[in-house]
Amino acid sequence: MNASSRIAVEGVLETCLYADDLASAEQFYREVIGLVVHARMPGRHVFFRCGPAMFLVFNPTATGTGLDVGPGERRLQHGAVGPGHVAFQVDESALAAWRDTLASQGVPIEAEVSWPKGGHSIYVRDPAGNSVELATRALWAP
Amino acid sequence: MNASSRIAVEGVLETCLYADDLASAEQFYREVIGLVVHARMPGRHVFFRCGPAMFLVFNPTATGTGLDVGPGERRLQHGAVGPGHVAFQVDESALAAWRDTLASQGVPIEAEVSWPKGGHSIYVRDPAGNSVELATRALWAP
Repeated sequence: MNASSRIAVEGVLETCLYADDLASAEQFYREVIGLVVHARMPGRHVFFRCGPAMFLVFNPTATGTGLDVGPGERRLQHGAVGPGHVAFQVDESALAAWRDTLASQGVPIEAEVSWPKGGHSIYVRDPAGNSVELATRALWAP
Repeated sequence: MNASSRIAVEGVLETCLYADDLASAEQFYREVIGLVVHARMPGRHVFFRCGPAMFLVFNPTATGTGLDVGPGERRLQHGAVGPGHVAFQVDESALAAWRDTLASQGVPIEAEVSWPKGGHSIYVRDPAGNSVELATRALWAP
């Protein structure tokens, strides 16, 4: 709780990763991860709905320089370089199906972990090299 | 929906940003954003609960090199450099209180946007320079 009031954020509304090749990123998150594209601006971003929130992939060359502004428009600069990380929640009963999907899509599994306190994770890489985890809810069970 | 099956991810379980100075990051996300620390490993990471998911801040120097492995342990390398972005969901009725909180904490507002299609965003920077957005649900209403 912040010091000056009782207000608190309700959750994460936007999760971001970065990729220079947005077409490859879109294909991966659509075809492999199964997300639905919400919006795209070629060369700048592709946005996906993901459960109750949004998963955003930006081209850091476009968003990091502030050069992607139009007339009368100002966008905030951000744009990280190097592998980021995201974990998507998957159902435990679907882990075998996920392994099948990854194999059929030619996406190698980098690691699998059964966590001592519960939960299971499958790690892969997206085409940009970001670490993408498919994890069961039990990993972070309260 | 991915091509080979009907399985789909249920949402984002882990959202990550990177910060070299984890102590400053922890103070910001705890005191200003109001998150609760779930776990920390000094020099490597600090994890926060955030609604139903987790918000993770890593030191990319530790996680990006693969040097942070212990005996018999293997951690996957990731670690981005440069400003990332996250948006936290806030209640519309709390926007004025958020402005007060930011002012009292000495955090300047970089921008505020009332979106044409609905929703409102307040943008600030965390101590590492990441772009942190406080956004109302209407921004991404289905």
